[in-house]
Formats: sequence, C-alpha cells, structure tokens
Amino acid sequence: MNSFTYYSPTKVIFGKGAEEKVGEEIRAWGGTKVLVHVGGSSAKKSGLLDRVERSLKAAGLSYMILGGVVPNPRLALVHQGIELCRKEGVDFVLAVGGGSVIDSAKAIAMGVHFGGDVWDIYDKGAQPGKVLPTANILTLAAAGSETSKSSVLTNEDGLIKKGYGSDLLRPRFTMMNPELTYTLPAYQTACGIVDIMMHTFERYFSPGGVNEMSDRIAETLIKIVVEFGKKAIENPTDYEARSEVMWAGSVSHNDLTGLGHEGDWATHQIEHELSGYYDVAHGAGLAAIWGSWARYVYKADLPRFARYASAVWGIENADPDAAALQGIKKTEEYFTSIGMPINITQLIGKEISDEVIEELAEKCTFFGRRKIGGLMVLDKPQIIGIYKAAR
Amino acid sequence: MNSFTYYSPTKVIFGKGAEEKVGEEIRAWGGTKVLVHVGGSSAKKSGLLDRVERSLKAAGLSYMILGGVVPNPRLALVHQGIELCRKEGVDFVLAVGGGSVIDSAKAIAMGVHFGGDVWDIYDKGAQPGKVLPTANILTLAAAGSETSKSSVLTNEDGLIKKGYGSDLLRPRFTMMNPELTYTLPAYQTACGIVDIMMHTFERYFSPGGVNEMSDRIAETLIKIVVEFGKKAIENPTDYEARSEVMWAGSVSHNDLTGLGHEGDWATHQIEHELSGYYDVAHGAGLAAIWGSWARYVYKADLPRFARYASAVWGIENADPDAAALQGIKKTEEYFTSIGMPINITQLIGKEISDEVIEELAEKCTFFGRRKIGGLMVLDKPQIIGIYKAAR
Repeated sequence: MNSFTYYSPTKVIFGKGAEEKVGEEIRAWGGTKVLVHVGGSSAKKSGLLDRVERSLKAAGLSYMILGGVVPNPRLALVHQGIELCRKEGVDFVLAVGGGSVIDSAKAIAMGVHFGGDVWDIYDKGAQPGKVLPTANILTLAAAGSETSKSSVLTNEDGLIKKGYGSDLLRPRFTMMNPELTYTLPAYQTACGIVDIMMHTFERYFSPGGVNEMSDRIAETLIKIVVEFGKKAIENPTDYEARSEVMWAGSVSHNDLTGLGHEGDWATHQIEHELSGYYDVAHGAGLAAIWGSWARYVYKADLPRFARYASAVWGIENADPDAAALQGIKKTEEYFTSIGMPINITQLIGKEISDEVIEELAEKCTFFGRRKIGGLMVLDKPQIIGIYKAAR
Repeated sequence: MNSFTYYSPTKVIFGKGAEEKVGEEIRAWGGTKVLVHVGGSSAKKSGLLDRVERSLKAAGLSYMILGGVVPNPRLALVHQGIELCRKEGVDFVLAVGGGSVIDSAKAIAMGVHFGGDVWDIYDKGAQPGKVLPTANILTLAAAGSETSKSSVLTNEDGLIKKGYGSDLLRPRFTMMNPELTYTLPAYQTACGIVDIMMHTFERYFSPGGVNEMSDRIAETLIKIVVEFGKKAIENPTDYEARSEVMWAGSVSHNDLTGLGHEGDWATHQIEHELSGYYDVAHGAGLAAIWGSWARYVYKADLPRFARYASAVWGIENADPDAAALQGIKKTEEYFTSIGMPINITQLIGKEISDEVIEELAEKCTFFGRRKIGGLMVLDKPQIIGIYKAAR
C-alpha cells in the first residue's frame, strides 16, 4: 500500500428534512452573517429557499441571497459575490444547489480576503490566505464538491475552465436530503451518475499500485451507482435509489476511493475544454470522452482494466486484453442505456472540426505549459488523438 | 436509507516513516506544550520514542512524557496525567501506542479543564467542557480509537469498565506506520483482528434497515481483515498485510460502515465486564462471546445474518436459518484458526462460576439501570443466558 494522507472533515447531515436545521448548524460553526448562494429559480419555486430563510431567521442569523449561478460557473458572478461579502461583512457562505453553486461559493469564500484577482489562484498558482467557511445544501448528486477540496471555475474571457484544490476549501458541513433530487430531469440525473463514476475512475485507473480497501470500495461504489442510478432514472421518486446515488456522489470524491493512488484526471481535463467551449453538461462530456481515453491508455495498466471488468461487470475472460476491452464496452453500453453520449458528435449534435480540436488541445496543455494524466502521461498530439478517437 | 450524521474529521497520515513529522504536524494544529503519553517500555526500546522526541524538538515544541498505560487503561494514571497537564500548562496530548494509550490520552484531555472528577463523565453522564486537542501515533491495529469518538476507561475501585463517546474526543490527526506493528506477537495481532471485525459487526448487525453503501463497505472490510489478518499472523513483516489491517482498523470504527444503523454494542458491553474482571485482552474476550451472542439473537434479523454468510463467507443455502448458523460457525472457525478463544473457558483457562456470571450481568446492566443491545434488547436474565451459553 502506498503512503497517503486522508482528510475529509466535512460533517455530513443526511436524510429527509436535513435542511431544516441549517441555521442552527451555521451558528454552531460560528457563522453570523451569511451569503446564501443559489443557481436559477428552482430553489425559490420548490420552496427550498423559503425553508432555508426560515431556518436562518429562527437561528437569529442575518443573510443576503446571491443567485444566478449557471452550470460551469462564471468568474463575473464570483467577483460580484466577493464585493457583496466585503461590503456586508459576510462571515459564512452557504451554497444551495449542485456542484456549480458550491464551486462558485468556494471561489467567493477564497476571494473575500484575497488581495488580488481570485482567478489568479486558479490560473497562476497564487496562494489563497484566509478562506471564509462554507457549507452547502445539496440538490444534485454529481460533482462531489459538497465534501471535496476542489472548485472549478470558468473565465468568460476566452472560455477557459480551470480547477483549484485545497483543504482550505473543504466545506464545514453538507446537508443531503435525497428528496431534493426528485425533480431532476432524467438527463441531469444521468449526467450526475457519470460524474460520480468518473470521480472514482480517475482515482482507480491511476498509478499507485494496490490498496485493497480503497480499490474494493471503489468497485463497490461503481456497482452501486450503476444499479441505483438506473433505478433513480426509471423512478425519480425512489427514495432508496436517490439516497444511494447521493451518498455515493460524496464518497466518490472525498478521496476514500483513491488512497495511495496519484489520480489521473486526464478525462476531466480533456472534458473541461469541451464543456468550457460548447457549454455542455460536464457529466455528458465525460461520458463522451471516457471510452476513447480508456482504449487509448488501457495497455499502460492491463491488470487493472481486466480487474475492473471482472469486479464490476462480472466479465470472466482469460485474455486480459479482451477482458479490459469488454469492460470498457460494458461501461459505454451503460452510458448509452441512461441516455448519455459516448462520442463528441452525440454530445454536441454535430462533428467537431480539426480546428476546434487543435484549439481545445492547445488550451488543455495550458498552451504548451503542461502534460496531463497519470496512467499514461499525455502531450498535445496524444490529446488530439483522444479527441479524434472520440469524434 | 435511514437518516444519519457522519463526521470523521481526523486527518490520517499513513505510511512508512509517518511519525517522523509529528512535531511539525502538532505545530500546524497549534500545539506548543505536549504531553506524550505511552504504555510500557516498548516504544522506548524500539527507538520510536527517540524519533518522536527528535521530531518534537526539531519543531521547537516543549514536551513531557507520561508512561505506564496498561491494557484496559486505569483511572489513577488518568488522574496523574490531568494533574501533570494542569501543572505544566500542556495544550496538546499525543498518544504513542494502541487503543489503551489513546483512550487514556482522551480521558486526560477531557479532564484538564473539567471541574469535577473525569470519571463522572464516564459513569454519571457529566458533560465535558473544553477538551484539549489530541493526536496519536498508532502502534497497534485494533481499537480504532485513533479516529473514533470513543474512549473506554477502567475504574480500579470495583474494576468497573465504562465507555464514553463525543465528537469532542475525535483526534486531530493519526499517524499510521504499518512497520510499527511488525513486532506485535501473533496473539496480540489476532486480538486486534477480532476487535476490528467486531467494530464492524456491532454496526452491521443492528437495527437500521439497509444502506447498501455502508453495508457493502462493511462486508468488504470484514473480508479484507479475514484475508490479510491471517497473512499478517503468518508473516509479521508482510507490509501489505499489515497495511490493510491497519487501515481497516480505522475504517471499521470511524462510523462509515454503520451509517443509518443504530449500532448494537451488546457484545462489547458483555465483554467489557469480562475484561474488566479478569483483565484479559479485549479482542480475545470479544471472540469468546460473539458466537454465543449471535446464536442468541440471530432470529431477530435472519435476512441480515443470511446475507452476511453469503457476502463474507460465500455460503449459498436456500434455508436462511441454516445459512445464518453456518456464517456464525465460519466466523468462529476463523477465530480458532488465528488462535482466539470461542468460549469463556478458553479465554480465562477455567470455568466461570454462576456467582461471577451473576456479578458481571449485574454490573453490565449498571445495577439494573439499563438494558443493552439493539438487534435484540437484552435484560439481565438474557445477559446471563449469553454468558452461560459462552461458558
């Protein structure tokens, strides 16, 4: 087992009505003046925002609301949130929504006491200083940002999407009420399922040898998401199914499934350029890319891909190469079965041009400043190869 | 899935040489004056204590050492530690050892700023106030106390053993170097294996319905401990085996395996009286009791015991009653195979008398003040029944 550090301090409050006690919980963590950060109008329409406001008032907290977060959250709104927090003396940021809202909230929390432009933390390796505490009420099982140290942000200027991770960004608490995900359309549910699977894949298919506990938890988690994800799509108000998917979403990204592994993240990075450019859903973008990435790199760790095929899909094939390819194919068939694309044409509704591929690959390498991946380290020509294979 | 709260903030630093940076890490958590709490002489003899002292000095920390913790740690030493901390202005308690040392350190950390006798927290429901931060360097995979909220203490006056749990007791960090467990005798390694299995059993076999993620992680964990525990006993310097067992020890007791379950803990409570009275090893005591407890209660949740038999031991039997009993028997056979007792006579080397059983059952019910268990709630006559069945 390779050495590792595991740190997942976020308190998880899971179950029906979890959000009712949000005011109390924020007060216990020392918050007094709260920025409530939300996406579109659904939190208002569903009555969730009213319940949150009631709870904050009951706990004697003052608060203001900043809405308007879109999928692939934007820097401009983050700047607006930072200004608002500074002006109002906010000391706690509560995100009500999915990964985009949570990531936007994390960016705001980093920016309030930061001297420069918060984008420099994402783009130029600037180090954040004091970060405001954040928490969240999750309405979408997907990103895992509710317990993770990650935040992804898009700069509208050039549509560049970048991620940043630090233990300073780990939320104080997350409230997960599976009922809040009942109203999600099937497509968004499916995008979430892919995202959850992918957070596990990025760790499982990466250098680091074997850590049986982590590896078997990863395999278990994938099987659970495959099984209960399908059920949640077929019956959106299946509480058990929504529960399993929601909890899997957090476990998939709190690091438990990849201890001792370096993490690969090439699929995420290749996809970030796609969803930054076309503004498509992140989960769908991942589904469109993964199979092509996997077939491009699987020989770099054949035993692992063969093990995956057996443990998750029950494929018994004495030839590891054949087993590995069958496992990848089964995964793509599952994506198709839940309405997800398995290539870029299915994702964007047209064929991607060589010119756009060239541009995305260029951005993906930070204009030649980096290679990506771990299982196989990929340079620009190889990234182009994967985009083309996924065309 | 039942509602749950999950909170496991302890930072885990795992791998060879982990302990070398203990000074640095304590400083990062704000400690300046450290009580180093240890057991017998082995930490000194092995050179571990010297390495710890070097690291503390290098980080500019002042410290003092309090040794002498014994298995089933005693109240008198805790009182001594509390006095020492008060006199010296200690602000951080570092345990170097296994569960007994960690539990003793937690008790000291609770007592320093507590007005009354710390035993009242264990015995009379008194609430602790400010608790000193603790951390630990683990030398024994067993108790899970390194990340848990629990502490168990024995009052020499009457040999009463009691547990207390609070999030305030969760250690700031734990350092786990599997090499530190190489020198453990087979018997102690086996006791640890049983303890780890039992922390999972107490959650898995308890009311709360099904939480597939937790239940499957529990089953995975038991299989890993069974497999790698045996290897660690056969080859004490097998790093992979020691690693898997050590990490399983923490996961088994950080609550992940029992989310949504109430927890049963009857086996622990029945055993606490045994090891309090006879001063035998806790793990061995659990092995001596568990099979008799399981046969006494299994009909209260037959599907769960049948599922366990299938998932962990591969038992396929259409009759759930027969399957359940086979699973219990397999577990006992495993205990025997690693040198553990499966009844009280094997544990203490003689037959336990009716009078002692009466006394232990009386203590176990807090002199009639409580019943125990969750899967089946047990009163004194039933507890006596289990002691007798385990005789």
